Amino acid sequence: MPPPNPDWVQALKPSGVQGTELLQQERAKSDVDVDRVAKFLFTSEVLERNAKILKTLQSHKVFDKSGNYFNGRTDRIKAALARGKKLRQLSVEHKWTPAEFVAANDLIGEPTPYGLHEHMFLKTLQEQGTPEQHKLYLEKAQNYEYIGCYAQTELGHGSNVRGLETTATWNGEDKTFTIHSPALTASKWWIGSLGKAANHAVVIAQLIIDGKTYGPHPFVVQIRDLKTHKTLPNIHVGDIGPKFGYNTMDNGFLLFNKVKVPHVSLLARFSGVNPETGKYIKPQNAALVYGTMTYVRSNIVLQSGSVLARGVTIATRYCAVRRQFHDRDSTDPEAETQVIDYTMVQYRLLPLIATTYALHFTGRAMLRLYSENQARMADGKASAATAAQTLADLHATSCALKAFSSHAAAEGLEVSRRTCGGHGYSAFSGIGSWYADYLPTVTWEGDNYMLTQQVARYLLKAARAVLAGKPADNDISRILAEFRRRQDIGAAFDVLDDDEDIVKAFGWRAAFLTFEAHRHRDENKQSWNSLLIDFWRLSTAFSQYLIVKNFYETLQDPATKAALSITELGLLRKLFLLFSLYHLQSNASEFFTSGATTVRQIQLARTTQTLALLKDIRPHAVKLVDAWSFPDWQLDSSLGRADGKVYEDMFHRASQLNPLNDITFDSNPNSPVLFREDKAKL
Amino acid sequence: MPPPNPDWVQALKPSGVQGTELLQQERAKSDVDVDRVAKFLFTSEVLERNAKILKTLQSHKVFDKSGNYFNGRTDRIKAALARGKKLRQLSVEHKWTPAEFVAANDLIGEPTPYGLHEHMFLKTLQEQGTPEQHKLYLEKAQNYEYIGCYAQTELGHGSNVRGLETTATWNGEDKTFTIHSPALTASKWWIGSLGKAANHAVVIAQLIIDGKTYGPHPFVVQIRDLKTHKTLPNIHVGDIGPKFGYNTMDNGFLLFNKVKVPHVSLLARFSGVNPETGKYIKPQNAALVYGTMTYVRSNIVLQSGSVLARGVTIATRYCAVRRQFHDRDSTDPEAETQVIDYTMVQYRLLPLIATTYALHFTGRAMLRLYSENQARMADGKASAATAAQTLADLHATSCALKAFSSHAAAEGLEVSRRTCGGHGYSAFSGIGSWYADYLPTVTWEGDNYMLTQQVARYLLKAARAVLAGKPADNDISRILAEFRRRQDIGAAFDVLDDDEDIVKAFGWRAAFLTFEAHRHRDENKQSWNSLLIDFWRLSTAFSQYLIVKNFYETLQDPATKAALSITELGLLRKLFLLFSLYHLQSNASEFFTSGATTVRQIQLARTTQTLALLKDIRPHAVKLVDAWSFPDWQLDSSLGRADGKVYEDMFHRASQLNPLNDITFDSNPNSPVLFREDKAKL
Repeated sequence: MPPPNPDWVQALKPSGVQGTELLQQERAKSDVDVDRVAKFLFTSEVLERNAKILKTLQSHKVFDKSGNYFNGRTDRIKAALARGKKLRQLSVEHKWTPAEFVAANDLIGEPTPYGLHEHMFLKTLQEQGTPEQHKLYLEKAQNYEYIGCYAQTELGHGSNVRGLETTATWNGEDKTFTIHSPALTASKWWIGSLGKAANHAVVIAQLIIDGKTYGPHPFVVQIRDLKTHKTLPNIHVGDIGPKFGYNTMDNGFLLFNKVKVPHVSLLARFSGVNPETGKYIKPQNAALVYGTMTYVRSNIVLQSGSVLARGVTIATRYCAVRRQFHDRDSTDPEAETQVIDYTMVQYRLLPLIATTYALHFTGRAMLRLYSENQARMADGKASAATAAQTLADLHATSCALKAFSSHAAAEGLEVSRRTCGGHGYSAFSGIGSWYADYLPTVTWEGDNYMLTQQVARYLLKAARAVLAGKPADNDISRILAEFRRRQDIGAAFDVLDDDEDIVKAFGWRAAFLTFEAHRHRDENKQSWNSLLIDFWRLSTAFSQYLIVKNFYETLQDPATKAALSITELGLLRKLFLLFSLYHLQSNASEFFTSGATTVRQIQLARTTQTLALLKDIRPHAVKLVDAWSFPDWQLDSSLGRADGKVYEDMFHRASQLNPLNDITFDSNPNSPVLFREDKAKL
Repeated sequence: MPPPNPDWVQALKPSGVQGTELLQQERAKSDVDVDRVAKFLFTSEVLERNAKILKTLQSHKVFDKSGNYFNGRTDRIKAALARGKKLRQLSVEHKWTPAEFVAANDLIGEPTPYGLHEHMFLKTLQEQGTPEQHKLYLEKAQNYEYIGCYAQTELGHGSNVRGLETTATWNGEDKTFTIHSPALTASKWWIGSLGKAANHAVVIAQLIIDGKTYGPHPFVVQIRDLKTHKTLPNIHVGDIGPKFGYNTMDNGFLLFNKVKVPHVSLLARFSGVNPETGKYIKPQNAALVYGTMTYVRSNIVLQSGSVLARGVTIATRYCAVRRQFHDRDSTDPEAETQVIDYTMVQYRLLPLIATTYALHFTGRAMLRLYSENQARMADGKASAATAAQTLADLHATSCALKAFSSHAAAEGLEVSRRTCGGHGYSAFSGIGSWYADYLPTVTWEGDNYMLTQQVARYLLKAARAVLAGKPADNDISRILAEFRRRQDIGAAFDVLDDDEDIVKAFGWRAAFLTFEAHRHRDENKQSWNSLLIDFWRLSTAFSQYLIVKNFYETLQDPATKAALSITELGLLRKLFLLFSLYHLQSNASEFFTSGATTVRQIQLARTTQTLALLKDIRPHAVKLVDAWSFPDWQLDSSLGRADGKVYEDMFHRASQLNPLNDITFDSNPNSPVLFREDKAKL
């Protein structure tokens, strides 16, 4: 570690109004009650639980974050392994619920090599294993004796599961399967927790019986020795190397050279092979798996709000502390203006604050729908047709929203980082690494562009039913039917003076694009491929409609009105307007081509109305991000410090924590010495 | 290093059609002559020069890149220091010109700690030093005895140079200046080559004489001992820590505790202090410095094309090699489709290919204008008024284009990375680190958003002159005057059938937005701050007009027609159309609000026309990126390999170069051992 700063440096303070003072002023001038809004967003139980977990984590040195921004990959993954171990120990000690365990992971803010064991290995064993397999595998896995992963994706095969190359061939004579990788592209790839940590894997392989392929099935395969952790024979496994982010995870590769596994390895709750006859046993019902994917995507939607809020919190606080230039029209040329007072900064930042709330409300709504549906399915009262329709609704909605919200969160984080100016580029901003770690979300659990095809398929189907006079009993069918009804009289939505009309305008545009797509595909017989761009636009329009609607409904909800003050409700309404009008004007041509709005209203939305909203929201910006309740320890950001001590923290980290400041260069270009400390070696 | 792969792994190949074959097919089906296009873009001299330098670099082990993606920051900066030394030695040995030195740096692809010595320290001494100072400082600096940097930005002060806090107070009695940092926010920050490498700095400090401040001036200050490289007394200097990218550079901080420097330290070519009287000597002419900034920005514009082309080359090749799913309408369900055949991928990637060419042509045009103007100024024939106008034109144009093109390059790199799907996230894609290293460009040499205010100021001034009937003799004034003339008859540009009309439509929209801004500011007296969002839109519109115009003019240029075949010219024209129509429909509302185009044409541009262009350009995509002539060694990308051996390269790097595969975890959560290799230590 570098030597302490000299006394004369220690005596220095930032000049002018201190950051602490500026943030105090920000908080003083808004009458938002941060605690009340926080409770409305998360409930007091959750806030108290998180505070308790935070205290536990902070009391263990292994969770100290001071090396995170400095260490290379090997040291980082070592630290992550140590943290994963401690997390597991604490979980046992404190009897954490799964939700508490997740909360602890969120506070730590980076994945550990046990991540996929916990998320996917245990879950797959549980959901797809028979009672016999639960006894054989699940118990040991729950006990962390077996550490596992979920090995699906291959080097040559990402989204297209049907194209996987790894084979599992049934051997009737000894009742085994032979797991084999016939090509380099068959190598499992990107598998989290596989590279270094796992001793078992659920391997998704093409099941082959008597030369016939039955599609991908899950097999439990041991890959490393339980004692020595050395790779077992005829298996080749390792870490796939560094990534743009997510480097505390050991994403791995895995190849098999004709490895035999027993009959029980095939997870057989839904389908399997009769060991006596060698006959394939078909799956009965795929709905459950369908439901799990919906659940995973709905969670991504909910998380996207807080993922983005983390960056937006940092940027908002820093833009309130940072001062730069004076306003050109200002009479005092000496006083520099808080950056957040520039409309260009507001225009980049405040719509993102609105987005964090919008995504949170939509995520909550998605998960509520999911739970309601699970309950309905469990009590068995819904008809098979109704159940199927609800599942299809949930599936399409979660696909659309996953694509839109993860994209919005990722883009928004980068915008947040840039609103921090030059310092946003420093690791100490805390946004860059967070963004880099989040980026895989736009690809995994369904690539965002791929998903929009699923949404289009659903909307096309709904349009066909409406046109055939047999609309389904769901929201989108009503929107589509209403569009058809009014198509010839036209719409006249007043998006500047009627909140409900905003929702209707977004619905109208989505319906318009749906029928356009339908015309291209069903009437003009355009190829599917030629419509992919239209489908992506359509899915985006549908997502925005859903989010605007959920935001509007949250505002109408009596529970919301009961939980918040008049000011807070008014402010949330303004966030709703800002979010809606921002996207309305960003997609202006779709709104006026569809006739949802007039050109004049779009122009006004984009100018006068937007400026008025920015002005009204501005005084509450800091408190609106405070309500997201991120502890400083979680943000790990100099710029985002709740107390505004931005420059002190930047300077401390640079001068006192930075290992490079313990090194002296030899910068003579003709000297073979590089670091003077290494001289002995040369 | 990990052990070699077992024999059975070494025997594996990717399945199906090999990447090599796919790229050969791509190249066979296009009749573009890659060499001819490359010569047109760069000239044979430059291509041959680069090939020679590449050979030199590859023959030295210090430039071996195999550790780049794996090493932590300390090892990376050490390697960069070693490379910087070798570069300097080779430069002396081979008598490289400055252009050759830059070419060598580009091939290496990452900054070295000598970077700012070479770019900024030498340049500043040269341009702002007197002959006496050249003798005293420049000669030693050219000889690398003095290693320097350019210390302007401070912890609390980025873009606003006038707000800098570091002071240089004139002491008449002993004819010295006292350099001092009065606050923590006065610490120099972000200064490249300062953190570890430099022993001297040009420090920009507020000159104070007799209590009066004369604004920021440059002082040469020694900061480290020439022998020991230890920091001199009352100076505190170090590296500011890790960043999102650019981590092979030692960006530094620097504080002074009343450090005395002699009178000669103030670089005095333009202004200074009379040592006898203590009187300030005013600068005569700021035009030269103005010119330098224009030059730097014009270079950013030119580079933005090749910066983006690097990512686009990687993505285009990989999308031709990668196959995923089969087309829904395809009759062969077995054959997976090349990803580049999906319109959604084409829509993301091909406009970026168009952008690389567009930016290159505009960068060339900018630099030509700059040189022409320098020559005119040198021969002294232009009137003072003409010279001032040309400088203002160049300044505004370079501001607008720097903002637009660096933004387009950065965004485009991230889009390229994502078109690579999951593998784009691997470090081996080569795009992520390149993007991260490029990002500061959107902030430095004028923050992109700040610059748009300069552009607006210029356009407002031009509008006022046109309205006053005294238009300047330049392009924008003609555009504005023409808009005024036709305002009441309206425009009727045919953007689908007339290339020149496309240019006119972009000009019309820029003129419309200029007069709108003028009306808001001069007639409605709106505050400057309330117009920043409009100014940013205006600057973007102006930039797009310039780029579209330059592309169009390049196509009309007889030299272009002489250099290329009919096919190649036709293809370049399609790139021009794709670039133009892409931005036209992305900003649709500005085009129809201004009356530049009809809604119907925009709709057609966005659908039929775009699809037709994608289809026509698609077969030439690989050759269009090949023409950018990046050697594999420069790209350092598994996905972007010219020979298509994508999967082999990914696997090789992961399994054979990855140091993590030489480590064994102990994943028992209750074991204190982390890496089994470390056991002895625990």
